[in-house]
Amino acid sequence: MNTAGGVWQGGGRRIALHEVGMRDGLQAETAFVPTDEKIALIDALADAGMRKIEATAFVSPQAIPALRDASAVLRAIGRRPGVIYSALVPNAGGAERAIDAGADELNLVMSASESHNLANLKMTRAQSFEALSGVSRIARQARVRVNISLSCSFGCPMEGDMSEATVLDGCARFIEQFGAQGVTLCDTTGMAYPGQVFALTCALRARWPGTELTLHFHDTRGMGLANVMAAIDAGATHFDVSLGGLGGCPYAPGASGNVCSEGIAHALECMGYDTGIDLALLIAAAQRLPALVGHAIPSQIVQAGRRLDVHPPPSDLDAIRAHAHARPRPRA
Amino acid sequence: MNTAGGVWQGGGRRIALHEVGMRDGLQAETAFVPTDEKIALIDALADAGMRKIEATAFVSPQAIPALRDASAVLRAIGRRPGVIYSALVPNAGGAERAIDAGADELNLVMSASESHNLANLKMTRAQSFEALSGVSRIARQARVRVNISLSCSFGCPMEGDMSEATVLDGCARFIEQFGAQGVTLCDTTGMAYPGQVFALTCALRARWPGTELTLHFHDTRGMGLANVMAAIDAGATHFDVSLGGLGGCPYAPGASGNVCSEGIAHALECMGYDTGIDLALLIAAAQRLPALVGHAIPSQIVQAGRRLDVHPPPSDLDAIRAHAHARPRPRA
Repeated sequence: MNTAGGVWQGGGRRIALHEVGMRDGLQAETAFVPTDEKIALIDALADAGMRKIEATAFVSPQAIPALRDASAVLRAIGRRPGVIYSALVPNAGGAERAIDAGADELNLVMSASESHNLANLKMTRAQSFEALSGVSRIARQARVRVNISLSCSFGCPMEGDMSEATVLDGCARFIEQFGAQGVTLCDTTGMAYPGQVFALTCALRARWPGTELTLHFHDTRGMGLANVMAAIDAGATHFDVSLGGLGGCPYAPGASGNVCSEGIAHALECMGYDTGIDLALLIAAAQRLPALVGHAIPSQIVQAGRRLDVHPPPSDLDAIRAHAHARPRPRA
Repeated sequence: MNTAGGVWQGGGRRIALHEVGMRDGLQAETAFVPTDEKIALIDALADAGMRKIEATAFVSPQAIPALRDASAVLRAIGRRPGVIYSALVPNAGGAERAIDAGADELNLVMSASESHNLANLKMTRAQSFEALSGVSRIARQARVRVNISLSCSFGCPMEGDMSEATVLDGCARFIEQFGAQGVTLCDTTGMAYPGQVFALTCALRARWPGTELTLHFHDTRGMGLANVMAAIDAGATHFDVSLGGLGGCPYAPGASGNVCSEGIAHALECMGYDTGIDLALLIAAAQRLPALVGHAIPSQIVQAGRRLDVHPPPSDLDAIRAHAHARPRPRA
């Protein structure tokens, strides 16, 4: 028994939230969110206190038409001081466009799983390593940060569990050979569980204490927040979150969205962590989403409100009270 | 940093799950689940390894028609050795019917909040204490266990936060004056958060180490599993769960259901806790619910499967692989 409260009592410790909904969320949507609305959302997310915002992806407009306005978005957003504006890039061409449009960071993606890498990127992992090595070089020359997102770090929906050695080997190449400033372990399809998260986070933190480690969870099996807490308990301080809980993965039927920005921010605030997030502003931003994406969003906080958003009592409560007080005492 | 893994590594520790879906879940449904289906579900839940099953409620059939077959259900279920079959009773009449039908335990309910007690039970808390004192006496005379469920222990949707003193005072009366064998702290509308859960669990465990303490959470704001983990970290070992995640509360709009039996059992199994649950049997039981209640259920495990239920790769994966291997090496 841990009477000090441990991980459950934040005591003002800082946790940085990285918003990925504008990329990881919107790319899964069939609706095209107008460019000016994307810009307004990103600015709202910065105002709400997000420390990093993955603003868009410089990918083929045929492959992901929802993000075909990447350059226009990145050029027009307000640049809030201290906020890192990141962009996903799959290759050298994307990297050059992203740098040209002013990205602070390039987010490079590959998978810990060979099957998932092939299905998602149409390349072997060896080909991805080689391609991303070139992209990292472009970023270094432009003095732009590099972050690597390693998909399926906690399991592959086709292959099952990934060994810790496989994940560490991937991270080692990016950190030690490519000079990546940050690594994100992605639970692409919600297979992570807290014991595994704790162990893997400890392993990475011990081996590369100077590298920014981000954890990216999906809430597919209801373990999203518990995974965040296990990672914090192991020393992690950076988490990807998605506004409204948008997101998903086409290779895992039933996979629900990323952990929800306002859900994680609300929970961490309750526990006394300092996320720097203004929850009212964040919830207001999430409330804009249903009209933009054309469907209800999974956000529980948008549905139920914050824990102390009290509800009016039933209109007859005074009558019930009067009736109760008028009752004879029951025979015991 | 806790390198031992702490609460995230179960290491075979035993956690007892109490199924409440047949009462707390079904009472919220408009559909009447046929008596023989209820009996079959309860037997399936016992076979799946539930340590306690709240089988029904002996309440007014006008108030809760969904449970109007309470006596018939309790008399007909198979009695699996070691399983405690509990029944909710609101008053002396209900207690006598429940005992007559063979309940192993009477579950008595009142609220930590005066407003919620009035709205839900049409009595003041003082009146509830007095009435439940009489019910406890009936149970004692019949040598039947008494458990008290204290609603709104973590906050009231109308009044806001409950003080720890209010909750402890309620527990003290039931444990010290009425001789209750068990107390359940109910997070009726999903207001609990892990820091609060940890502190309150520690307080109760320290004051009444010999009383069975159960925690009852709702996942309204996505904190269900994290609350379970905080309670385990504070020494709790008994949790209410609801098959399929059924349940809700009419006084808190947007409140989602109880924490889901198969979701909690799955997460605890992943972490190495011994719940005694056979997950395949439990999931099969949950899969029967949509046809019985007439709507989809919130269960994420029924939707997404267990974490290692792998999916077939896309049918063209071999072609993608062959194409990738045939590619010339990229210019770096």
